[in-house]
Amino acid sequence: MTRTVVASATKEITIGFDQPFCVIGERINPTGRKKLAAEMIAGNFDTVTADALAQVAAGATMLDVNAGVTAVNPNETEPPLLVQTLELVQGLVDVPLSIDSSVTAAIEAGLKVAKGRPLVNSVTGEEEKLEAILPLIKKYDVPVVAISNDETGISEDPDVRFAVAKKIVERAADFGIPAHDIVVDPLVMPIGAMGTAGDQVFKLLRRLKEELKVNSTCGLSNVSFGLPHRHGINSAFIPMVIASGMTSAIMNPCRPQEMEMVRAANVLAGHDANCQDWIMAYRDHVPASGSNATASPDMTKGDGGRRRGGREGRRRQSAS
Amino acid sequence: MTRTVVASATKEITIGFDQPFCVIGERINPTGRKKLAAEMIAGNFDTVTADALAQVAAGATMLDVNAGVTAVNPNETEPPLLVQTLELVQGLVDVPLSIDSSVTAAIEAGLKVAKGRPLVNSVTGEEEKLEAILPLIKKYDVPVVAISNDETGISEDPDVRFAVAKKIVERAADFGIPAHDIVVDPLVMPIGAMGTAGDQVFKLLRRLKEELKVNSTCGLSNVSFGLPHRHGINSAFIPMVIASGMTSAIMNPCRPQEMEMVRAANVLAGHDANCQDWIMAYRDHVPASGSNATASPDMTKGDGGRRRGGREGRRRQSAS
Repeated sequence: MTRTVVASATKEITIGFDQPFCVIGERINPTGRKKLAAEMIAGNFDTVTADALAQVAAGATMLDVNAGVTAVNPNETEPPLLVQTLELVQGLVDVPLSIDSSVTAAIEAGLKVAKGRPLVNSVTGEEEKLEAILPLIKKYDVPVVAISNDETGISEDPDVRFAVAKKIVERAADFGIPAHDIVVDPLVMPIGAMGTAGDQVFKLLRRLKEELKVNSTCGLSNVSFGLPHRHGINSAFIPMVIASGMTSAIMNPCRPQEMEMVRAANVLAGHDANCQDWIMAYRDHVPASGSNATASPDMTKGDGGRRRGGREGRRRQSAS
Repeated sequence: MTRTVVASATKEITIGFDQPFCVIGERINPTGRKKLAAEMIAGNFDTVTADALAQVAAGATMLDVNAGVTAVNPNETEPPLLVQTLELVQGLVDVPLSIDSSVTAAIEAGLKVAKGRPLVNSVTGEEEKLEAILPLIKKYDVPVVAISNDETGISEDPDVRFAVAKKIVERAADFGIPAHDIVVDPLVMPIGAMGTAGDQVFKLLRRLKEELKVNSTCGLSNVSFGLPHRHGINSAFIPMVIASGMTSAIMNPCRPQEMEMVRAANVLAGHDANCQDWIMAYRDHVPASGSNATASPDMTKGDGGRRRGGREGRRRQSAS
């Protein structure tokens, strides 16, 4: 059974096909958050602090930490800022971290200060990237996210994306890195732009589980880009990827609808023993106003367990 | 491609692997609804009328109609009451109907008056049931729900349940009934009582699609029986069964959370061309109070599209 172990100084988490879905909190990332970027450049970590605490409180299994505040000279500016952010976050919360950067020097600087066994985010199938990142993965004995694109870009053909993932796993093996330390990101396209994006990912996930036998992750909210009510799409996507074998996602744990679907899918996949986490989370659940509205008051009663002919029928048949 | 065609007098619906999920409204069923049973016995069809209209307004693809008001002498009492209910409902709404009874005489009486091409709900693998129902299915040229249990009861072994489904399909073929007119119910157990219930169904659904190539259905809410916040479990179950190949379900369409997951899963499965139904349903969506709450106000902004190293990174790398 594939087991990717990540850890903070005090807490070990296993990512695996028999484990609860690993929710990697995405919030500590200045990409596209101008205000956060400006704060971090100015040495203000108030938002980082709030995001770290809120995500863990909301149920994040791990936190992604990215300090890519600028495209100007990131090789010099990003390593010290990433180190500072990682040190702050690991002082605040006890969940394992994901060191997220496109700058190799920043990843190595992060690996030097991160406690436990962090995840590195990420390597791709690009030759230059493989040669830069895989030696660090081996040296620090950590797992890595492998994004299934290469020099040719992101293929629309899922077979090509699978081949890229396979190549990364094989190249990692050449470096002495076991497949269970590769967490493949099959790449999720916006469903609004490509109607086959979901099916592609579901098929890829099944192959990653059954053929490559590797854990998987994705940037979950990409799927709903451009659509109204994105949280509805994201929320349905979670149980679908879990049913297809995905074992983690980089997502916003502060969204109750999405986290509810993570918890429910854990129950339904058989990864919440005795439904304990579900019962703890929802035993006193009161539906939000409006979200449980029904067309007639009577409909709030007797909404389950009622069933047609089949079973009920057999009892009646003996009387007929 | 498997296509189960059902129809009312004026509307034809196809159940299939390339079609939007077929939502069969479960409400018109006095089993477990004492008040409704008493009303129907007294000839009061107000609730039936309200339920028919509300379910279609909420987005039901078809309606299940059951008139099993009593276990006393159902062979005599149920046929005329089912006929009366069917005639009322098909006068009110234009969706196809499912004739739901465990009483063979009631099913035949219903088939005589139902317009279009109704679904019959149901037959099991029990010999007596097969001999009673399949000739009617052939005679009236209609599709039927096949519940995968037999004289030995409901097996906990999914292989046995698959074998029962296969037997029903084969027996139907002996009667000249094509496999595309069999809609298999793999039987959904409560996940709270059996932690493997979900996985069993997902595996069965995949075999039903890939090996038997038949459409499928289930009494959806059974899965959450006994748990708190059942709608959360039901809502996650819908995308999971759709991802596993289920093509219809008998469920309550008046639940917004569940219907939202049906619509979103249709989008993600590629069964909502250009996301048209989704956009129509949610273009002006305002989240219900509380259901979209976040831990900090800032979190309501920039919640998607942000991503770690990978793609954003490649743009930056050229600058590094």
